[in-house]
Amino acid sequence: DLPLLVIAGPCQLESADHAQMIAGRMAEICAALGAGYVFKASYDKANRTSLSGRRGLGMDKGLAVLQGVRRSIGCPVLTDVHEPGHCAPVAEAVDVLQIPAFLCRQTDLLLAAGATGAAVNVKKGQFLAPWDMPNVAAKVASTGNDRILLTERGTSFGYNTLVTDMRGLPQMATTGYPVIMDATHAVQQPGGLGGASGGQREFAPVLARAAVSLGIAGVFIETHEAPDSAPSDGPNMIALDDMPRLLETLMAFDALAKAHPLSL
Amino acid sequence: DLPLLVIAGPCQLESADHAQMIAGRMAEICAALGAGYVFKASYDKANRTSLSGRRGLGMDKGLAVLQGVRRSIGCPVLTDVHEPGHCAPVAEAVDVLQIPAFLCRQTDLLLAAGATGAAVNVKKGQFLAPWDMPNVAAKVASTGNDRILLTERGTSFGYNTLVTDMRGLPQMATTGYPVIMDATHAVQQPGGLGGASGGQREFAPVLARAAVSLGIAGVFIETHEAPDSAPSDGPNMIALDDMPRLLETLMAFDALAKAHPLSL
Amino acid sequence: DLPLLVIAGPCQLESADHAQMIAGRMAEICAALGAGYVFKASYDKANRTSLSGRRGLGMDKGLAVLQGVRRSIGCPVLTDVHEPGHCAPVAEAVDVLQIPAFLCRQTDLLLAAGATGAAVNVKKGQFLAPWDMPNVAAKVASTGNDRILLTERGTSFGYNTLVTDMRGLPQMATTGYPVIMDATHAVQQPGGLGGASGGQREFAPVLARAAVSLGIAGVFIETHEAPDSAPSDGPNMIALDDMPRLLETLMAFDALAKAHPLSL
Amino acid sequence: DLPLLVIAGPCQLESADHAQMIAGRMAEICAALGAGYVFKASYDKANRTSLSGRRGLGMDKGLAVLQGVRRSIGCPVLTDVHEPGHCAPVAEAVDVLQIPAFLCRQTDLLLAAGATGAAVNVKKGQFLAPWDMPNVAAKVASTGNDRILLTERGTSFGYNTLVTDMRGLPQMATTGYPVIMDATHAVQQPGGLGGASGGQREFAPVLARAAVSLGIAGVFIETHEAPDSAPSDGPNMIALDDMPRLLETLMAFDALAKAHPLSL
Repeated sequence: DLPLLVIAGPCQLESADHAQMIAGRMAEICAALGAGYVFKASYDKANRTSLSGRRGLGMDKGLAVLQGVRRSIGCPVLTDVHEPGHCAPVAEAVDVLQIPAFLCRQTDLLLAAGATGAAVNVKKGQFLAPWDMPNVAAKVASTGNDRILLTERGTSFGYNTLVTDMRGLPQMATTGYPVIMDATHAVQQPGGLGGASGGQREFAPVLARAAVSLGIAGVFIETHEAPDSAPSDGPNMIALDDMPRLLETLMAFDALAKAHPLSL
Repeated sequence: DLPLLVIAGPCQLESADHAQMIAGRMAEICAALGAGYVFKASYDKANRTSLSGRRGLGMDKGLAVLQGVRRSIGCPVLTDVHEPGHCAPVAEAVDVLQIPAFLCRQTDLLLAAGATGAAVNVKKGQFLAPWDMPNVAAKVASTGNDRILLTERGTSFGYNTLVTDMRGLPQMATTGYPVIMDATHAVQQPGGLGGASGGQREFAPVLARAAVSLGIAGVFIETHEAPDSAPSDGPNMIALDDMPRLLETLMAFDALAKAHPLSL
Repeated sequence: DLPLLVIAGPCQLESADHAQMIAGRMAEICAALGAGYVFKASYDKANRTSLSGRRGLGMDKGLAVLQGVRRSIGCPVLTDVHEPGHCAPVAEAVDVLQIPAFLCRQTDLLLAAGATGAAVNVKKGQFLAPWDMPNVAAKVASTGNDRILLTERGTSFGYNTLVTDMRGLPQMATTGYPVIMDATHAVQQPGGLGGASGGQREFAPVLARAAVSLGIAGVFIETHEAPDSAPSDGPNMIALDDMPRLLETLMAFDALAKAHPLSL
Repeated sequence: DLPLLVIAGPCQLESADHAQMIAGRMAEICAALGAGYVFKASYDKANRTSLSGRRGLGMDKGLAVLQGVRRSIGCPVLTDVHEPGHCAPVAEAVDVLQIPAFLCRQTDLLLAAGATGAAVNVKKGQFLAPWDMPNVAAKVASTGNDRILLTERGTSFGYNTLVTDMRGLPQMATTGYPVIMDATHAVQQPGGLGGASGGQREFAPVLARAAVSLGIAGVFIETHEAPDSAPSDGPNMIALDDMPRLLETLMAFDALAKAHPLSL
């Protein structure tokens, strides 16, 4: 029962300076609180709602920036992959490969990610039940790699809306793999702005707290110094300045939760 | 910010002795923990899945039993009403009138309940959004009675399944009325057993804990000394012997949550 | 395999003249097309979204108006009931008692309606699966009354939205009871306007046609000469002037469907 | 308003003989009824529920089989693609590239498919609203290729269940692109068998008929001479011997629907 792991960063990479600024600030905050920290950012937003949405720095520049963060800040870094062929080169630059929710059933991607030996964080598809995830994890584990994390990010609930079923967290934890709550994507309103997704930033701390109270391994929170001008996911991101207070609270709930383990 | 209120009891009244046994035990447990306590039981299960389901003691006997509990145990008592004409006589015997979820839009029932001057606990319909509840509460409040509680008990999620959206709790709390989490009905599987509802008792503590961590006013938990032989709602009830440990944990989360109020 | 039954009328009774005008016009249209016709209107809207919504003429005036329609137009009339005690007096004035969707699990209401001997049209709750309806029908049938109709009016699908699962129509038909598609309530957006329900009038013909193509017994369509100024359900009603063309099309699909019965 | 297009075949390619047998039989049936016909089969099931599910012939063998069908039967052929790099080689062998539902937001895949100039059939994700599809189609159309089809295959509805919202068909048709109803995948129960998806074969004709009655461009139906022993999707497939009667009925509804166009 390690203390809470915090996976946090901007939704997409903007520049080396920007990544280092956020990673540096987050690493400091987490260290002060005794939380684990992993920097997260995407080099390519491969499934934007509309074609005109900005996609990011691209793989070459992006991986260089991620390696820069790892070197200068000293924290592990995580990014997402979208094709089997990308897994090997990306795994040379990062510590955790993330499988996007829409892609969590793509066998070749899971196998390729597993085969790198890097840790693999699989987001549960918006169309999956918690009890469907052991089949997903087994694809990764079949490569001999059991450094697997399972992340909840909400389930389809009618149109343009997600709901988070808290029962899913302890249910997925019965696999033995660490379970992460992605509190900012879970408050997305997919397609809710027509050509982009909306979000309910104000509810991310609500879901994060409820999830942490159940004794999960970690939280995933996208953050930005100015969410309203972020190139993607702005409506659901937490402002960087609000992170210390949010995480301080979450750490208090984490300690209490781990002193009172749920038995399912 | 009062300490957690616990509304608990058997789903339906079985006998005076049984009610007193459960109320006595629960009152003791709650007093030891510093929690508030209200005894809950139904004298008539008016909407059983099938006709053959047992309905309970009926109004005359039932109200006598509830008054007996109030007198001998000294705790407030709550029961549910199903027709406008029942509100006045029931309000003479109990402290809190409860509006069942299916009936939460029935204007005359809400008005009649409000007019008694008793506290009114309205369960949110499985078909309502949290932001629909102010319209419901306004019907009760129009009688000049603002002793209103709002209870979450899950929302329809596909067939025979409920999901609890934790965002709904702070959302409903913006009305200013106390918000209660009904942790045992929220894990029902309505109609899930064909002629009766199924349930997932093991997840009731999960939902209760997540909800309490958000700083809600109270929890609603059905309990029985032998849930598997209870005449209704057995599959989702908590065993009476498991209540002390569950409530002790919830009280710890309640204290932490109230020290860290959410701001929406 | 009778030709399609059309249950149609304004959502709520407005006046005797208004009811007669609509019933007269609809009876004419249906007779010309060879469709059955039942006039529908409510004397009391007992579960408006908000307290300020108009409720209608009330029982005494309302039943008189319904009897007037029956006498002068010569068609059967249908209205909804909300409390067990209302069933007997209402059954003296109308041919079909309708159980509202929210109330479809209220045992006493179903028993009282059944006991009148009138036909009973039960709307499937937004929170029920099609396979839950045999339990509901059995409550009515237990009174010895098997003149039962089952009506689909949409199922909760996220917040403020309904979806109609076409599989439910033949599924409910396996009970042997006539199945009706309520095409105008199924396109409601419950609570979608804050203090009232919204609706998507343009999709009512879509759902009606899809349902009729499956060989169902009838359709339920609310209609008004000026839907946008109707006191309730305006956003989802069909304009009276659009009914002849809509029903002509539906009758063509009805004939084809009944020539090609589905076998489940 | 062309007559109904039928896209049909086994879920996955099994052998050249098997493909030719099914394509030959289907082409005959469709020709006799005046329906269009496209042969469909997958050379690789890239997102099986579990790793142990059979994936098919693979790309090289599979494309050869598809070309064989095209040559000997003379019908267009359709198959699905899963990575951008597969689009060009696959487009040399087939007439229609299909984008799987889970992948319908992957920008690079849509662009690569569009760039081949082949027709592109995009399945609507189980997590998307009908009004989200114009953004998807615009990604393909941005390549200058407007030979686009949009396919409905059900929307997530709680866990392990899909529901088809018939409103989505005319809604998607407002894009001007042909709309297809995938009647056999829409009755899947994803993950419903634990390690595989279940299905409700008996409801595929129900959804197909309801959809065709709305005047859509085509239906997509997986078929097999012995569905219960098919290597994938058996529970929701239609037996090949049942196709003539099913399609004869659908053609009758198609003719009627196209004589009565819906106006949205």
